[in-house]
Amino acid sequence: MDRSIEEVNGKEEPQVRKQRPGHRATIRCGDVEFGDGDFTVVAGPCAIESMEQGLATARVVAKSGARVLRASLFKPRTSPYSFQGIGEEGISILEAIREETNLLIETEVMSVAQLGLLHDHVDMLRIGTRCMRNYELLKEVGKTRKPVILKRGMSATLKEFLLSAEYLLVDGNENVVLCERGIRTFETYTRNTLDILAVPALKELTHLPVIVDPSHSAGRRSLVGPASKAALAVGADGLIIEVHPQPESALSDQEQALDPAAFLSLMEELRTMAPVVGKSL
Amino acid sequence: MDRSIEEVNGKEEPQVRKQRPGHRATIRCGDVEFGDGDFTVVAGPCAIESMEQGLATARVVAKSGARVLRASLFKPRTSPYSFQGIGEEGISILEAIREETNLLIETEVMSVAQLGLLHDHVDMLRIGTRCMRNYELLKEVGKTRKPVILKRGMSATLKEFLLSAEYLLVDGNENVVLCERGIRTFETYTRNTLDILAVPALKELTHLPVIVDPSHSAGRRSLVGPASKAALAVGADGLIIEVHPQPESALSDQEQALDPAAFLSLMEELRTMAPVVGKSL
Amino acid sequence: MDRSIEEVNGKEEPQVRKQRPGHRATIRCGDVEFGDGDFTVVAGPCAIESMEQGLATARVVAKSGARVLRASLFKPRTSPYSFQGIGEEGISILEAIREETNLLIETEVMSVAQLGLLHDHVDMLRIGTRCMRNYELLKEVGKTRKPVILKRGMSATLKEFLLSAEYLLVDGNENVVLCERGIRTFETYTRNTLDILAVPALKELTHLPVIVDPSHSAGRRSLVGPASKAALAVGADGLIIEVHPQPESALSDQEQALDPAAFLSLMEELRTMAPVVGKSL
Amino acid sequence: MDRSIEEVNGKEEPQVRKQRPGHRATIRCGDVEFGDGDFTVVAGPCAIESMEQGLATARVVAKSGARVLRASLFKPRTSPYSFQGIGEEGISILEAIREETNLLIETEVMSVAQLGLLHDHVDMLRIGTRCMRNYELLKEVGKTRKPVILKRGMSATLKEFLLSAEYLLVDGNENVVLCERGIRTFETYTRNTLDILAVPALKELTHLPVIVDPSHSAGRRSLVGPASKAALAVGADGLIIEVHPQPESALSDQEQALDPAAFLSLMEELRTMAPVVGKSL
Repeated sequence: MDRSIEEVNGKEEPQVRKQRPGHRATIRCGDVEFGDGDFTVVAGPCAIESMEQGLATARVVAKSGARVLRASLFKPRTSPYSFQGIGEEGISILEAIREETNLLIETEVMSVAQLGLLHDHVDMLRIGTRCMRNYELLKEVGKTRKPVILKRGMSATLKEFLLSAEYLLVDGNENVVLCERGIRTFETYTRNTLDILAVPALKELTHLPVIVDPSHSAGRRSLVGPASKAALAVGADGLIIEVHPQPESALSDQEQALDPAAFLSLMEELRTMAPVVGKSL
Repeated sequence: MDRSIEEVNGKEEPQVRKQRPGHRATIRCGDVEFGDGDFTVVAGPCAIESMEQGLATARVVAKSGARVLRASLFKPRTSPYSFQGIGEEGISILEAIREETNLLIETEVMSVAQLGLLHDHVDMLRIGTRCMRNYELLKEVGKTRKPVILKRGMSATLKEFLLSAEYLLVDGNENVVLCERGIRTFETYTRNTLDILAVPALKELTHLPVIVDPSHSAGRRSLVGPASKAALAVGADGLIIEVHPQPESALSDQEQALDPAAFLSLMEELRTMAPVVGKSL
Repeated sequence: MDRSIEEVNGKEEPQVRKQRPGHRATIRCGDVEFGDGDFTVVAGPCAIESMEQGLATARVVAKSGARVLRASLFKPRTSPYSFQGIGEEGISILEAIREETNLLIETEVMSVAQLGLLHDHVDMLRIGTRCMRNYELLKEVGKTRKPVILKRGMSATLKEFLLSAEYLLVDGNENVVLCERGIRTFETYTRNTLDILAVPALKELTHLPVIVDPSHSAGRRSLVGPASKAALAVGADGLIIEVHPQPESALSDQEQALDPAAFLSLMEELRTMAPVVGKSL
Repeated sequence: MDRSIEEVNGKEEPQVRKQRPGHRATIRCGDVEFGDGDFTVVAGPCAIESMEQGLATARVVAKSGARVLRASLFKPRTSPYSFQGIGEEGISILEAIREETNLLIETEVMSVAQLGLLHDHVDMLRIGTRCMRNYELLKEVGKTRKPVILKRGMSATLKEFLLSAEYLLVDGNENVVLCERGIRTFETYTRNTLDILAVPALKELTHLPVIVDPSHSAGRRSLVGPASKAALAVGADGLIIEVHPQPESALSDQEQALDPAAFLSLMEELRTMAPVVGKSL
């Protein structure tokens, strides 16, 4: 007999675990849904760099049919000498983008201070891989009701990932979308190793939607397309993907951002493939 | 500008590296091809256990439309007390299977002695993950012209994997099919971590076909389907997959073998999906 | 010829890198030094649980000759349902300990709010493994002049570890002690894999002192002694080690804390061994 | 209470597991012992390259007081284009070394054919990291009574390592010395990550002696000394270490072999330290 994978009402993660076989949540962000058969694409640059770059990217994202803009104002960087994000002054860029394109705005928060600053200006929060274990931040985001993308820590087990999500749910924020973004291994050809089976594995364990970040897992433009298709094929509920009007001059993640043409072309491919695997895009 | 990934005529792996962009090999095994747009499925039990089990599995494989039977007589087992395979007496089972089903026979060799014993009775060889660095064996298999599946070592980098393939090519055997089968990480929910991006990464580096072993990477029956679809989605040239007439009573790999119904159903799903991603099955 | 390991004045980590061969910093915390030939032991429970437990542990630490008490009031826990630390009310316990034992107080901070709360009540800060990449916290701690133990992230490379230390130095806090505490691998017998060669490797790269956490790396009481001796043998500048008056009833880390007798005995062994490897304890 | 680590008479590895607390084996190789308080050093080049290089190294090893020469004639190399060892013609070099220096000869075997060729000319066998899972080879070496060093696979768990040793014992060869040689992780500063706590961990599980290979774990000359001292400090029964008369012109492992002066100096340091940790050298 198979190992039972749908343990009903897990004892250590009571809220994040499925309550019954087939239990699935749909998370709403404005008029967009994560879950319920949709393949939802969040797209945008690694970081908002300027009004011009922000608007240019937003137009491409809107043109593609995606509805949510990845729009980071603050960036966690391994080096203190790397570009740290445009910061608070970027808020006016977000407002301009929203006014022109009507896109929903998704952004990263790395501290309680940033949460306070950005909460009212965005539609969706993101807790990045470095913050998956930032429990003080999780507790504060848990007190909001804002939809939030929680990315897997770069060496987190699935159980630890779920326990971090539990921090959000236990404080009352049920609007959690999990994101697989690659784990750290010995392999160096890719930036991380995309753990593609984490998607169906998480769906065995939790009712929360699961999306994939093909850009950070691959770390190479040429592999972003295959990673995205793999995500769709295994039943992911969407993507968060990096697009930049001119990747070669981006202030960060130059090697993994798609240019507009490549992004639009990939969206077409995904649109063709989606119905075959039972998703709508 | 993108990192150049199609280095022409690699210096350290001169034969296994692409000689030019777009360079692709097609490996023939009987009337079956690996490469050239085909999605070729090798299927069968972890190990041949008896005439009855071997024939029963072979009939399911033949019924599915797959043309190559995974048919191991010798098994590398972590424990000396585990079932080590039926051994030489299994050859007559292979003959019976071939006669009844006309399937091509693929088998694992772990030593020069086994190679001598099995060479004339099978259509395709397999060098398993534990033998990827068994260079003395590679040299001997390199002297044959038999098509061979080379599985990636469980903690091998892509470069090391290619260098092991180079051992085969340098001695004259160009009929090499590479197989991604999951790598070892800290995650324990899956038996290994399927490195799905290894498939398109290898295709950037080498002209050799690349298949995926969804069974050993997942290690759980429920994840074999998603792993197989991911393989198809990223452009793999096929699968090697475990099927058993009664997985719950198998002598090895009980938790990852598909039963006949699940296997036939998966083959149908793959057949539907293949043309959408440009493959024929 | 050997690879040159003492790159003078590193370009990416200009402050944390050695400025010249033999460059070594000595970090002072009260009358205690890290570096300069001392083997400095920071010891205490995983967390302060009560006045009674805090005082009992402090007495053992003082008796051993160690001068710095590990005294965490806030705990980063993988599960929201685990003991999260005694919190702010523990400050009075720290005061009582200091008054009775004259020990220096070292404590963990996980957020800017905690830093504000604890800064004036402690002698040394600790940034834990989960916070090594919490750059917003690093920036704030960098603005203080408090000595700080920075623990290596559980899957951080040495380069990333140094870049996190650079965040502290670049904002003006040069009083940084690095701590190797084990990395995450596939091995499960130990809680983490103690990367003992990280100690001499870091000493090739940086002038900062390096200590070892034998408790979290081993995760098993029986291996804490060997880990401590290995640290001393490879030239570490000290330890941060868990001691608890009754490990079997501790609210966290039961399996890795030493009881008083084992701790005192280990300190004797280290004292005997230290002069042989050129250290004083 | 502590986790019981000395499980008496393990069910899955009945012969390799301790039969009782305190159970320890002493393995004899000529007049040398592994275990029983000795710190036994096996030293020599990565590979025997010539009569001159072999004799020169042997003289250094003999001068140091070590009694066993590492003397590989066949080398497992990642690339088919790397030096593969001097092969069979090296046997006469071994004879010359033995005659002049009276050292015991230890050598690597990678296949049954090599075992046949070398068995009568050497005192001790070595099964390398790539062959830890070469079960066909283990079975053949298990049938001999020759003392054998079994190296841990580069991504093997301790349990798997013990099961490979069980293959040797089950066929009757009890003269097994285990060797920790570093495992593969994401860290790249060192060639492998020396899992130093594997030594005391193995001693909790098995009665077999455990030695350390500081050269392959460190992969850098400058870290070989610290790795050796760590091994001594945690209770290892010895070392297998690379020495070469002129490392910079070695045909393999140039960066990790010690030159004669460094080796002799390290031996002196170890001799001073040994009695402090209860070992004799």
